[in-house]
Amino acid sequence: MKIQKVETELYHVPLSRAMVDAIHGVQKEFSLIVAKITTDDGATGMGYTYSVGQVGGTSIATLIHDNLVPLLIGEDPRRIEHLWEKMWWALHYVGRSGIAVFALSAVDTALWDLKARLADEPLWRFLGGHDNKAEAYGGGIDFELSIDELLKQTQGFLDAGLNAIKIKIGRDSIAQECERIHAMRDFLGPDRKLMVDVNMKWSVEKAIRAARAFEPYDLYWIEEPTIPDDVEGNRRIQVEGGIPVATGENLHSIYEFRQMIADGGVSFPDADISNLGGITALMKVAHIAEAHNRNLTTHGIQEMHVSCLAAIPNASLLEIHAFRVDDFLVHPLEIKDGYAYASDRPGHGVVIDWDKIAKHKIAFKSAQG
Amino acid sequence: MKIQKVETELYHVPLSRAMVDAIHGVQKEFSLIVAKITTDDGATGMGYTYSVGQVGGTSIATLIHDNLVPLLIGEDPRRIEHLWEKMWWALHYVGRSGIAVFALSAVDTALWDLKARLADEPLWRFLGGHDNKAEAYGGGIDFELSIDELLKQTQGFLDAGLNAIKIKIGRDSIAQECERIHAMRDFLGPDRKLMVDVNMKWSVEKAIRAARAFEPYDLYWIEEPTIPDDVEGNRRIQVEGGIPVATGENLHSIYEFRQMIADGGVSFPDADISNLGGITALMKVAHIAEAHNRNLTTHGIQEMHVSCLAAIPNASLLEIHAFRVDDFLVHPLEIKDGYAYASDRPGHGVVIDWDKIAKHKIAFKSAQG
Ligand SMILES: [Mg+2]
Ligand SMILES: [Mg+2]
Repeated sequence: MKIQKVETELYHVPLSRAMVDAIHGVQKEFSLIVAKITTDDGATGMGYTYSVGQVGGTSIATLIHDNLVPLLIGEDPRRIEHLWEKMWWALHYVGRSGIAVFALSAVDTALWDLKARLADEPLWRFLGGHDNKAEAYGGGIDFELSIDELLKQTQGFLDAGLNAIKIKIGRDSIAQECERIHAMRDFLGPDRKLMVDVNMKWSVEKAIRAARAFEPYDLYWIEEPTIPDDVEGNRRIQVEGGIPVATGENLHSIYEFRQMIADGGVSFPDADISNLGGITALMKVAHIAEAHNRNLTTHGIQEMHVSCLAAIPNASLLEIHAFRVDDFLVHPLEIKDGYAYASDRPGHGVVIDWDKIAKHKIAFKSAQG
Repeated sequence: MKIQKVETELYHVPLSRAMVDAIHGVQKEFSLIVAKITTDDGATGMGYTYSVGQVGGTSIATLIHDNLVPLLIGEDPRRIEHLWEKMWWALHYVGRSGIAVFALSAVDTALWDLKARLADEPLWRFLGGHDNKAEAYGGGIDFELSIDELLKQTQGFLDAGLNAIKIKIGRDSIAQECERIHAMRDFLGPDRKLMVDVNMKWSVEKAIRAARAFEPYDLYWIEEPTIPDDVEGNRRIQVEGGIPVATGENLHSIYEFRQMIADGGVSFPDADISNLGGITALMKVAHIAEAHNRNLTTHGIQEMHVSCLAAIPNASLLEIHAFRVDDFLVHPLEIKDGYAYASDRPGHGVVIDWDKIAKHKIAFKSAQG
């Protein structure tokens, strides 16, 4: 069995409304970069990565098209570790992280889809099959919402079957943040999980002071209180702030995760197959976390990640993110009583209505003349 | 003063001969990505980055063209820290390292060129002016050469005025490497500096064993004995192998350098303005190294780096790399008695003969249709 064709596609998908967080500013759309693999005997696999706004979308697509596809043609798609290593080292000089890993991620996810489909297995069972569901939470991108709007959004999450919620914070005024978090805790009652996400906006000292001020609201975690490059700073926030840290959406290798976990900078490692190196890398991070007595959470693309968390014994919460392809899914993600359910279709089971999404397709072509 | 125009250009520059190292395989060319900035009053600055072969060249150029240029137009080019931060955070979701940093590097170097030219100062003096020269070494990409060819290459370096040499190693057989290094030491005599570069090929244990076997040959450093993601491994190689480690060409942020230096993984931090975030980031790493009592070496593009090392008090060796634009330089780098001399022209003083290099230009255009 050999890979015969790899198609690279780029989409700019509009968001349902403009969204704001503490770092990325106003966002109206996201970039979706798709890799579709076909073998000589007609087997197929599909994977994707994404980026905020139009940041790097063309660059990621260009890298897949110009540099990864030639490495894949003629190879056995089932030898994923071989292909992963081949791509990693081929890109290494411009890689180890960043755009190279986003590109690798889309391809790796397509390879796992193909492999699970060959085995006629749903991905969640193919990868381990711990349980077919994952506890889910609503991740609002709601920095600019008034408290009234925040509670209205929260009611929407509850109506959708979710019991855990995360809000965006990161203002200069800790008192203002306390007011918002207090309102959320009152609204949710004492038993539902509530998290906050700073998107790296704060210094270590500010995050520690804030964490102490948040103590009455019983937060389940504080996410990215500061930059992930500062492992010791994240450790201090946990120890001195007395609050578990979730971080990882901006870590792009198993090495970065290993260090953050081993050095005590994170309680909830937050992985994303679309920017960490695909399912191959996420599963390794899951196992590293397990060996450190930590549960894994995921960032974005819930329709994919539900199958990863359902596979492993150390799953924490699945983020239901607002950058969503839901409007184009033939089979929307099923959520009930706080849990999301993994697809039982072969592979990851994510089927996109390509006709419906076609209007957002960018006429991508290689930059090389 | 405002930036009016930023041109992005891509070249595939052939090497004088096919070259081989332990990791990147056979290389016949390199990609050169150029950023040319012009202000509304006609001031100009030029910077570039490069990659091995055609790896990521189109992707880097696409990122500059599609994502960085729009951030720069209309800005004051002299506020480099402001622009650097703006670019860093705009690219952050796909950044922190990798291709985003390569793109940023080309722009940052162009900004420094422009700024020094405005001041009518040569870059080496504008950045600090410690001394106008840097001790240089010949960095062979010579993994596949026979010992005879190796010595012939070495004689060429000596004839060119260099007194320090680095060779590529990384074979399975340590005995074979000892034979090559022994021949080099005999040829050079006891007083000239000799280094080896493993290009990350070895495990920590293998590197320690090799370092001990190399003890009779008085090596000045061992470069990239293993992957730079393993800080503790690099530290062990220094301590247990009894040999200074040089590493850094695959580190892409001040955070990664700080950690490697502070945790004892490197004696000679090896920085490269073309993949670290430009002159802004290299100067910060130089200062971090100084505060840790370490001297900085540089990787590649000697025609640029000579001005950086000449600026600082803690300069170690300047690598004279084989990926060279020398054939297209209007003013070739001056080397005499083991030293390379920084240009006294305003800015970095690197003037490329654009007509001569035009035949290698790739008809680059945005991937976005
Ligand atoms: Mg987040
Ligand atoms: Mg090297």
